[in-house]
Formats: sequence, C-alpha cells, structure tokens
Amino acid sequence: MRTQIAIIGAGPAGMFLAHLLRLQGIDAVVVERRDRAYVEGRVRAGVLEQVTTDLMRQLGLADRLVREGLVHGGTNLSLDGRMFHIDMAALTGGSTVTVYGQQEVMRDLFDAAESRGLSIVWNASDVALHDLEGARPAVTWSLHGREQRLDCDYIVGCDGYHGVSRGAIPADVIKTFERAYPFGWLGILADVPPVDHELIYANHERGFALASMRSTTRSRYYVQCALNDDIANWSDDRFWDELCLRLGPEVGAKVTRGPSFEKAIAPLRSFVSEPMRWGRLFLAGDAAHIVPPTGAKGMNLAVSDVTMLAEALVEKYKDRSDAGIDGYSARALARVWKAERFSWWFTSVTHRFPAMDGFDRRIQIAELDYIRGSEAAQRSLAENYVGLPLGAA
Amino acid sequence: MRTQIAIIGAGPAGMFLAHLLRLQGIDAVVVERRDRAYVEGRVRAGVLEQVTTDLMRQLGLADRLVREGLVHGGTNLSLDGRMFHIDMAALTGGSTVTVYGQQEVMRDLFDAAESRGLSIVWNASDVALHDLEGARPAVTWSLHGREQRLDCDYIVGCDGYHGVSRGAIPADVIKTFERAYPFGWLGILADVPPVDHELIYANHERGFALASMRSTTRSRYYVQCALNDDIANWSDDRFWDELCLRLGPEVGAKVTRGPSFEKAIAPLRSFVSEPMRWGRLFLAGDAAHIVPPTGAKGMNLAVSDVTMLAEALVEKYKDRSDAGIDGYSARALARVWKAERFSWWFTSVTHRFPAMDGFDRRIQIAELDYIRGSEAAQRSLAENYVGLPLGAA
Repeated sequence: MRTQIAIIGAGPAGMFLAHLLRLQGIDAVVVERRDRAYVEGRVRAGVLEQVTTDLMRQLGLADRLVREGLVHGGTNLSLDGRMFHIDMAALTGGSTVTVYGQQEVMRDLFDAAESRGLSIVWNASDVALHDLEGARPAVTWSLHGREQRLDCDYIVGCDGYHGVSRGAIPADVIKTFERAYPFGWLGILADVPPVDHELIYANHERGFALASMRSTTRSRYYVQCALNDDIANWSDDRFWDELCLRLGPEVGAKVTRGPSFEKAIAPLRSFVSEPMRWGRLFLAGDAAHIVPPTGAKGMNLAVSDVTMLAEALVEKYKDRSDAGIDGYSARALARVWKAERFSWWFTSVTHRFPAMDGFDRRIQIAELDYIRGSEAAQRSLAENYVGLPLGAA
Repeated sequence: MRTQIAIIGAGPAGMFLAHLLRLQGIDAVVVERRDRAYVEGRVRAGVLEQVTTDLMRQLGLADRLVREGLVHGGTNLSLDGRMFHIDMAALTGGSTVTVYGQQEVMRDLFDAAESRGLSIVWNASDVALHDLEGARPAVTWSLHGREQRLDCDYIVGCDGYHGVSRGAIPADVIKTFERAYPFGWLGILADVPPVDHELIYANHERGFALASMRSTTRSRYYVQCALNDDIANWSDDRFWDELCLRLGPEVGAKVTRGPSFEKAIAPLRSFVSEPMRWGRLFLAGDAAHIVPPTGAKGMNLAVSDVTMLAEALVEKYKDRSDAGIDGYSARALARVWKAERFSWWFTSVTHRFPAMDGFDRRIQIAELDYIRGSEAAQRSLAENYVGLPLGAA
C-alpha cells in the first residue's frame, strides 16, 4: 500500500487530521490498533473550544453538534461554597465553549469517514514505524496474523500517550517535561439533570469538585480523591454527600441524585514531549502532551495541533514549501505550553494539595477572591478557557 | 501623658497615620525606639503606588514628590534577554507609579511633623504595651533611664516585623502564615544614570535581576543570589557583569557602570499575621505583614492599612460608631492578601528556584510568553502593580 500521509491512531487527533487532509485532497490512511466500538466508547473529554467547533463546522461535521451541543457562554467558580460566575462570552467578545462528549465527536467523525470513504485500518497490531530519517518512511502492522506495510511521505503519530510513535524518536533527541499531581479525580456519569446549566469548578477546604454534564439529562460529576483510593470505597451515597458538601449548601441542595454509572478514578498529569517533529514523523495530541483535565484542554489541543499540521502539509504539497512543516513543532508547542500553563494553574488554584500549608491555602483563597473582583483576571481566565488563538505560523 | 492614639514606631505606617489623625483633629503620640537620622537613613522601598502619592497630596506633603518623583506609566519584563513593555497607564485608565525613595518620603513626613508640631518621642527603649483588653490601655518606655507612661484610647503597632506590638497579642489568638524564599537579593546603589527610564524585571536562566532607580542619576540594581552568599564575593565588576548578563546583550550593553554603595544582601519573605486588631491594639504595615520586594508592595501596604485605620478611627471619634474599627482587620487583610498573592506570584514567575525542574521552567516561560501576548494578562498585572483599590469598608 502507498499513501501520502500515514496516520497512527483513530482518536480525535487522527480522525480530525484525516478529514482535514481529505478536504485538501491529500491522501491519508489511518492505522488503528483497536476497533471502532472501542475507540468510540471511551469516556473522555466533554467541553469543546471554539477552535474545535469551528473545525467541525468547516469539515461539515457539525449538524448534530449544532442540534445537541450545549453552548456555554459562561462558567462558575466556587470557593468554600460561595459561587461566582465568569461571563466568558461577554469577556471575550462572544466566544463560547460547547458541551458535547468526545464519544459524540468520535461518532460524527467515524460516520462521516464511512460515508466519505476515508481509509481506516482497524485492529492493526504490532504497529511499527520505519525509516523516519530517510525519504521513504513506512508503517508496518499485523492484521489477523498477516504483515502489512504502508509506504508514505510522512507519518503522523496520533496514537496517544501510550502509543508507539513518540518512542520512535531517539532518546537523545527527545526532551520530556512532566508533573504528576498528588491526587486523582473520582468521576461518575448519572442520568440526572445537571445542577446548573453551566459548569461549576469548586475549591473546597476538603478538595476540588466539578459539576459538569454531557446533556440536559446526563450529569458528569467529579470529586478530588486520593491517588490510591478505590472506587469500592465510594458508594453512590458517599459520592453524592461529598459532592454536595464541596459545592456548598446552596448549590448542594439543588443537586439531583441518581444511580451512577462509569464510576472511575483517574490520575492527573502534565506532560510535554519535545520536539513534535522528527524527520518524517510528526506528533499530534496526546502522543506529544497530556494536560490535567481541569479546564478541558486535552482534546482541544489535539484539534489545534492537527489544524496547524494540516496547514503545514497543504503548504508542502500545494506550494512546495517546507516552511510549514519545519515550523510545525515550534508553532504547536507555543500553544501547547500556554494550555499546559493554564491547565496547571487552574488545577493549582482549585485543588487541595497534601503538602499545602496555611500560606498556600490563603494564597488560593486570595487568588479566587481576586478573580471574583477583577474583570481583567476574569478576562484572562476566560480567554484561556474558550481557547487561545492558534498563533502565527 | 495622655493621648487618644498611641502609635508605636515612626516608620512610614506610623508617620502617615500620625499625619492622617492630625488632619482629622485626633490626638496622637508616636513612640519610636531610634532617632530620626536612623529611621530616615534606612534604605528601603522606592516605588509608590497611586494610593501612596494620593495620600501624600491629601496630606500636603507632595511638593517635593511632584518636583523630584519620577512618574512611571509603564514597566518592563524581560525573559532570557528579550524585553517587553507593559503600558500600565493605558491598561488601567491612567494609573501610574512614582519612583521616590522611602528615605525621601520619611524626610517629607518628618519635616512636616516638625513644622506641624506632631508629637514624636525618639529613643524610647523598652517599649511595652499594657491593658490592651481593658478600657485604659497604656504604653510605657524608658527614656534616658527614666520610665515614661502614655495613657490612651487605642494603640497602633507600626513597629515593623521585629517590633513588640505583634507579640502583645496572645499566642492562642494570633495566626501566622509564612513563606521563606530560597534565595536573596543582592542590591546596590550607584550614582550612574539608570539603563532605562522605567524598571526592568528580568527572568534569566541564571536568576532574577531588577533594574530600578532612585532618580535620573542614581540607579538601584539587584541580582538574585544564594541566601548564604556574602557581599565579599561580589566585587563591583562581578556584579555589573552578572547584571548585564541577566538583562541580556541588548539592554546589558546600555548599562552605565560605576562604583557601588549600599551593597547588601536581603532575604525574601512572605508573612501575614492575623488578626490585625486585638482589643485596643491595631497592627499596621510590616508589624502585621511582610511581602517579598518584587513588585514593591511593602510600604504601599503600610499606607493602605493606615488609610483604612484612620477612616475607622474617624468613624469612632466623630460618628461614635464601632463599625469601622470592628471591620478594620478583615478589610485590611482582604487587600493585604491580594498584595501578598501578587508579590508571591511575581516572585515565583521571575526567579530561579533551586528545586525547579524542567517543567517548572517551561511553565515560567509559558507564563511570560502568555503575558507578552495577552492584553488581559497585562491588564491584570498592571492593576496589581499600580495598586488595587482599597476595597469596601
């Protein structure tokens, strides 16, 4: 087999890129280790930045998003039970975020991929990348026990943190930056109406809580927990009690309880790998960087990466210029690091850290008090939350 | 002796308060451990917020400030030698800061105190506070070997971090919050023209540097150094070389070198003591809180404290209302903590921390890059730098 762009991984990064390249008339094949049902079933992000909804519109994938997505012009912060509102739309000249689960995004991407005849290889095991430094890179994998090979011009690693692509870059080239947080998020889904029509990020003496949602009838709630905690310790009753306590009496009293599903504990991590291009390999999305979920930047960063990369590849194929692909890593990383900073900061200011002393706690309180009273601070938070501009190529 | 308000300490907090009370016709006596020459000679802050210059005008103390103070409508940040400007005045609707040394402020305060006949007791040793919980508090001290006693309605502790006032609050009442920073500032004064007409806060791989000034002919420069460093290790040549390196080649080349005086290493500390009122004792300024010098909030916080306290005392004496004095501690601390947060943040984002890893460094770089490109972030920095509003009583 031969194609122009081999894409490793059929998650958001890979599938958005495949659609973008198709729109530009560039050939691509997506090679995915799992099957569609598995990828589509993963419960992940749920808040889309403007950059992501804009891209879905541009790709003609936004019909259901427009119908079913919940547009949020604001969000809420809460400090020890006192909630205040950030009017993001007013602060950013009209930008919003849209609640629409990653599972829905994947379904739209896959449905359109089928109807548009995008090439996806499912269930490819033992994926390996070859000749990344030469002029003729290739991807090989095993399918139902048979070796397959895809020759291409470039390979794009969209295979996530645990994928093989990042590992194909030599250890003496790659630099990684990492922060593990000393807590996890215990998250549930429940088919009950959300407590508020927008999200609530709550800093409470006992720890962080997040009131989010997937739809007007499906709530997504989280409470900060210990990393070594076990969901067996968390009956639904205990979860709802702790959530309501952290949201404070006023908001807590409005929470509709119900049986949970998808109860799970996830660690929080910041991670960046540099560079995002090596020879004929590009990295995009979680393959190159992870953010803690606070602020919901993960999938949106994958989208901004592949938007930039598609621009660069168009430049290469249409204008015969290497400028875009040579600049991709620096351009993508500039935005990645700003999102990493925001996600780290938003995590730092809302969570209870085991090593916090009284001074740290007072600084958190002072920061949230300052944000409550300062339009400039709210605007800064809002412009990061809705998503910073892609930045100059 | 008897007065209405006994003020402990003739530093900025005590002297501004004495003038404010005189303006309102409230009797006060200032009791100071040292003499005028000593207090006036201390090299301290040099950048006045609007709240401070406004007060000097209101007190009729601004003649020389207007003539000699350098009004700064902006300031500069520098990251690894690349400098960018923050147009504070444009971002805050016209607010500025004024470079005018604390020594000059003290001279103006003392000169006017003499001509207005304010009562100051100099060289008072063994100062002690009495009966703070009763209705008849008093201050005693020893002067030239003789015991003296001042009966009063209230005592205001303006005697700094090392003063006796804070210690008069029982240990089970007081809560303190503290952060020691793992570095110091090596500062010099030199009679050479400043490298820029505004300040430069420089984050460099090798550590922080600050280009400040006292006048158009006197420069005040600092470089971050180890806490256990010794000025004996720092020849003038070494200091200038290191300063220029951290300011970067472009700015460094413009630095005018000359012999230094007042070469000293100072530690950096954040400290807050709560409450700021206990019985008939109020604390103001450094007696209650210390900030690291980054952002120059120290003396300005003393001014905002005593401005609020004077309002409260006027309410007490003129309106016979306790509301102001009962609310003083909470009102002052609300602003103090925001300034503590800003000073801590500005220190965190500009200094090299010994325990920093690659992730921390990239977050610093991302934050400064973000500020460089974001008007909202610049406005937030600017409104803190020129000084937040006093806040509701």
